[in-house]
Amino acid sequence: MDSGRLEAFSDGVFAVAITLLALNLAVAGPGHGPLARQLVSHWPSFAAYFVSFLTIGIIWVNHHTLFKNFSEIDRTLLFLNLLLLFFVVAIPFATATIAAYLSRGGADASLAAAVFQAVFEGMSLSFGLVFWWSIRREHLKIAPAGTRSAIIRFGAGNVAYAAAIGIAFLSAPASLLVSALVAGYYVIEQTPSRDPGAMTTSDRNEDSSARP
Amino acid sequence: MDSGRLEAFSDGVFAVAITLLALNLAVAGPGHGPLARQLVSHWPSFAAYFVSFLTIGIIWVNHHTLFKNFSEIDRTLLFLNLLLLFFVVAIPFATATIAAYLSRGGADASLAAAVFQAVFEGMSLSFGLVFWWSIRREHLKIAPAGTRSAIIRFGAGNVAYAAAIGIAFLSAPASLLVSALVAGYYVIEQTPSRDPGAMTTSDRNEDSSARP
Amino acid sequence: MDSGRLEAFSDGVFAVAITLLALNLAVAGPGHGPLARQLVSHWPSFAAYFVSFLTIGIIWVNHHTLFKNFSEIDRTLLFLNLLLLFFVVAIPFATATIAAYLSRGGADASLAAAVFQAVFEGMSLSFGLVFWWSIRREHLKIAPAGTRSAIIRFGAGNVAYAAAIGIAFLSAPASLLVSALVAGYYVIEQTPSRDPGAMTTSDRNEDSSARP
Amino acid sequence: MDSGRLEAFSDGVFAVAITLLALNLAVAGPGHGPLARQLVSHWPSFAAYFVSFLTIGIIWVNHHTLFKNFSEIDRTLLFLNLLLLFFVVAIPFATATIAAYLSRGGADASLAAAVFQAVFEGMSLSFGLVFWWSIRREHLKIAPAGTRSAIIRFGAGNVAYAAAIGIAFLSAPASLLVSALVAGYYVIEQTPSRDPGAMTTSDRNEDSSARP
Repeated sequence: MDSGRLEAFSDGVFAVAITLLALNLAVAGPGHGPLARQLVSHWPSFAAYFVSFLTIGIIWVNHHTLFKNFSEIDRTLLFLNLLLLFFVVAIPFATATIAAYLSRGGADASLAAAVFQAVFEGMSLSFGLVFWWSIRREHLKIAPAGTRSAIIRFGAGNVAYAAAIGIAFLSAPASLLVSALVAGYYVIEQTPSRDPGAMTTSDRNEDSSARP
Repeated sequence: MDSGRLEAFSDGVFAVAITLLALNLAVAGPGHGPLARQLVSHWPSFAAYFVSFLTIGIIWVNHHTLFKNFSEIDRTLLFLNLLLLFFVVAIPFATATIAAYLSRGGADASLAAAVFQAVFEGMSLSFGLVFWWSIRREHLKIAPAGTRSAIIRFGAGNVAYAAAIGIAFLSAPASLLVSALVAGYYVIEQTPSRDPGAMTTSDRNEDSSARP
Repeated sequence: MDSGRLEAFSDGVFAVAITLLALNLAVAGPGHGPLARQLVSHWPSFAAYFVSFLTIGIIWVNHHTLFKNFSEIDRTLLFLNLLLLFFVVAIPFATATIAAYLSRGGADASLAAAVFQAVFEGMSLSFGLVFWWSIRREHLKIAPAGTRSAIIRFGAGNVAYAAAIGIAFLSAPASLLVSALVAGYYVIEQTPSRDPGAMTTSDRNEDSSARP
Repeated sequence: MDSGRLEAFSDGVFAVAITLLALNLAVAGPGHGPLARQLVSHWPSFAAYFVSFLTIGIIWVNHHTLFKNFSEIDRTLLFLNLLLLFFVVAIPFATATIAAYLSRGGADASLAAAVFQAVFEGMSLSFGLVFWWSIRREHLKIAPAGTRSAIIRFGAGNVAYAAAIGIAFLSAPASLLVSALVAGYYVIEQTPSRDPGAMTTSDRNEDSSARP
């Protein structure tokens, strides 16, 4: 089974999820006070939209980077990818929840932030599973150095999201800031296949097999 | 007519339907009691989301497995595929309905669960029609053993969903559990083209015609 | 410019529009009377969903049939296709409007049905423009007999939708029935490229240019 | 990294965003006065839908025209494209906001129109960044004359959107009219790769590398 249709379906889910995020930006409309005040008090929606958009964008970039190296997809990988999408699809819900409760403070804000981070942690862990299965079954040809640095990167993200679940109960906004920083870290950090040795291998592979 | 665009359109519908499922997870928001209590009393939404996500995911995997064996698509198959999508598109509605009524109990919960199962049965029957047409017109090259085991598997799912419609009137949650078990069964069970003989045939075919 | 990305974008729009149709099926939920009564009084939503789903499905099939014959897409065709999508995107709105007003009767039901048919007429006319431009610029290689029968078919649909706008002011349900019959007509009728001579030409063309 | 999957993901986002625009057309429904009066007083929704649909359509055409010239995509371009999509995704929100406030007049209408234009300006600026990066890194092979005319065209749009933010505080409807005129200008004006010299270069390039 080639990876083309898995990528097309996943891209569809990423695209719909990232676009649905903005539904939550809608203000209550006329009759709920001046628009300026509504927009200002709506800041948690904009902040959560920003973090979630960037996070889905990054996971898409990484998904892209990972799957273009695959020559074949097995049934297990199809279902691990579905697990990943299960959490991606839940992100608009998690984003709407944290946006609705963040400025309320107290136990509700903390719980909303913890739910938000738990969905990100679930997404991050399932991406790790996809990556682990890829290496174990040697679908993914990657240089050992690339593998090590990828494990460090995935590990850092996972630990940060896990910490953010805890931080949510101390301060919900601080927890949101942690996920923004994780997203910023992944924008700057390179993905595994950028490792020069691995790139050469995978490119050569791609030239001979995936391209006709 | 090649199968590429049918798959692209179907993937789009699957992707949008699976992502819209999560819209239904939204809690009522501040002013409707503590978030923790809202999330707990919202369990039917999460349970229905889980079952529907898995079911759409599996039907996508099977759709993928089936259509990659096709060398051509006729007009009848286009419309049978539309019939399948007709039920897929109705799944977010069926999921929202069972989620809203499940914990109410009584006749409404039973009816909501029966509607839910009827949509799944409609989807399952139309997938069977697509498969039956594929074999009859010999679009699908598959070993006889693969065909027999596929018929058993489709039959099992159809009977289970039909039974679940009846079970809905005894117990709505039990009916939801049945569709979760059907989904679990399809995750474990292999799809027809994994039959080694059939794989060899279809792969050879794919190498010579679909790939340039 | 090749037609691949135009088709991918159009497929995305068709897929989202057809899936959004089902959002309108949602019942009001607990506290609005027995579910059975809600579902029964909700029949215009189901009827309108059925007609709109079938109509978008057919226009997708025809779009597919038309564009696979194209060897190149010019800028005018891109914008004529956008005009077609403009009406496709408006179908969920038109469907929700007729569903909300159909069982009310009176001037509102008639106006809602007329809006519904006007959106279908707009879609049908823009599809005709796309087809006309294709023939004029000879992008589309089609046998003269195929062209004549296509003109008859497009004409029939356009006249029927125009008539349905008028019928809406006599009886809104009768108008909805007309669009259901038009959809049924297009399911049975063959599309232009099925004309044997045209098929041979376009297939030969496709073999030499589109496929590597 | 080839540009195929970036285009597929972007097309998905464009398709979802353009289709979500129409959700905002929904009238309040029975019990809110005659449908005819609701539709008439709903004119800002239709006007804003028209402008936003055309603008997303044009940006999609330009995105298509730009990326088909690319032989490779670097990581910076992936993230600049995400920035562009960030604003595209915000368009349904901006459209809903201007539609809700336009006919109210006063400070709220002006602010809503300014938010609307600011989102368009953000989209226009990020498209400019994508174009600038493409030329700087020589991913994009384009004749100097094509580059100059593209810069003039992008500049004209950016200045017009910036002016429209200011005009919003004088007259919100006038500001909406400016963005309609900008869209009309881009429909008539040709995109850079239509420059004959550039076309030849990029076509030759495409023949030898992108097509197998």
